[in-house]
Amino acid sequence: MKILLVFAHPESRSLNGALRDVAVQELRTQGHEVRVSDLYAQHWKAAVDHADFPPLPPDTRLKVAGASKQAFEADALTGDVKAEIEKLLWADVLILQFPLWWFSMPAILKGWVDRVFAYGFAYGVGEHSEKRWGDRYGEGRLSGKRAMLIVTAGGWQEHYSARGINGPIDDLLFPINHGILYYPGYDVLPPYVVYRVDRLDEGAFAPIAQGLRERMRTLATTAPIAYRQQNGGDYLIPGMQLRAGLGDPHARGFALHVSHEDAVEAELNLDAAE
Amino acid sequence: MKILLVFAHPESRSLNGALRDVAVQELRTQGHEVRVSDLYAQHWKAAVDHADFPPLPPDTRLKVAGASKQAFEADALTGDVKAEIEKLLWADVLILQFPLWWFSMPAILKGWVDRVFAYGFAYGVGEHSEKRWGDRYGEGRLSGKRAMLIVTAGGWQEHYSARGINGPIDDLLFPINHGILYYPGYDVLPPYVVYRVDRLDEGAFAPIAQGLRERMRTLATTAPIAYRQQNGGDYLIPGMQLRAGLGDPHARGFALHVSHEDAVEAELNLDAAE
Repeated sequence: MKILLVFAHPESRSLNGALRDVAVQELRTQGHEVRVSDLYAQHWKAAVDHADFPPLPPDTRLKVAGASKQAFEADALTGDVKAEIEKLLWADVLILQFPLWWFSMPAILKGWVDRVFAYGFAYGVGEHSEKRWGDRYGEGRLSGKRAMLIVTAGGWQEHYSARGINGPIDDLLFPINHGILYYPGYDVLPPYVVYRVDRLDEGAFAPIAQGLRERMRTLATTAPIAYRQQNGGDYLIPGMQLRAGLGDPHARGFALHVSHEDAVEAELNLDAAE
Repeated sequence: MKILLVFAHPESRSLNGALRDVAVQELRTQGHEVRVSDLYAQHWKAAVDHADFPPLPPDTRLKVAGASKQAFEADALTGDVKAEIEKLLWADVLILQFPLWWFSMPAILKGWVDRVFAYGFAYGVGEHSEKRWGDRYGEGRLSGKRAMLIVTAGGWQEHYSARGINGPIDDLLFPINHGILYYPGYDVLPPYVVYRVDRLDEGAFAPIAQGLRERMRTLATTAPIAYRQQNGGDYLIPGMQLRAGLGDPHARGFALHVSHEDAVEAELNLDAAE
């Protein structure tokens, strides 16, 4: 397979740097092609602004979605953005690796999403009708590909558990996994999360690296998170609310958008494929 | 009161720009002092890197939390960060205003948080013991102050409702409201959210502006979201999990961390105060 790893840590001599090297080495050992977008090394421009849209005359009011659409359609986005789009189209699997800062991704990586996920490429794709609300949430230009997060967190795993004070890690990552990756079509694998990274000693690294190698070996076979496809019948169109009767009756919020029946089915298919 | 509005939109001639002007004008009419941090106008540097920590020798490995702690304690953070910290200490109320991009804040604003919310200032504050786990989640250097989001979204309100496909807006904003604002001590007011902003016509603006003016007039009296204080007895220390028996037994995820009894109590106090 072809794999793109987007790396968003300012220090290569860090745990994140070491884990990136472990992942890349394991993937290459398995015979995969790997490319790395090291955002700090690339001096990635984080803020969306007027300069991102060369077709827009200098004094024209910037409407981001419209300017993005126009520039993408004209193949006139800036060179750095076009290079990342080319890598995304090349890759079968996208991995985003970052330290969890303030319960989300670092600014430089958010700026990669804000700039690279252009209108017509990652959103604003497909037709709207009574049966479809565009190609998004499981459909879109990146469908058929897989994506996964590698995340390091300073806090304790318990603090990110179902009743932990930070909120459950799956919910904290939902705006990324569902809102950024599933939205343009990726099948999203469960994240690989490492906790208490500021307190790791030497002995702790080996099992963490081993777990990551295992995840890299199973990229093609790990069952994705069973998010519900937007246009698959589960949602009312155009209000896009989950139909009555679907979802755990006690579930609230993000958990509603994971189909547990589908998850079981995916595991069965996986078993059958082995 | 003293109010700091942090503005994160690349175009002043935008709905966001117009709403900022409405908010600032109303606050000044009410006799408040207002300062605006216009991040694009300030050319705010978004990415945390080695240069943010002048005390760190050039070839030294960057450990972000440690470097932040050292620089904050030595009053040696960069000038742009120190200026924002000074504004935060000055202001009684912090308002963050931004367009919702990919279900979170724009990179430039995330970079303001990543850089300004230093160790020793916004995290890593207070002592750890059997009864306290630092001063965070309702306690900290910014306690006694209020904060609020003003957010514009391209999508429909229904898509952000309890069963909407994007996930509920309160859950999407939880990592910001709870994880960024409540964490260093702010009382967090419900956000002011405007939907379908790409399709607004002239007639739609007046009621939106009117609603915003009303929120600006009630900054001091609006009941905050009733997040649970970390050290108030609701959480087990050090695991920081919500004690058994607390929270709606059917609630999952972020909703557990809002105390509905407290919310009722806050409303009663507000009634009594009127």
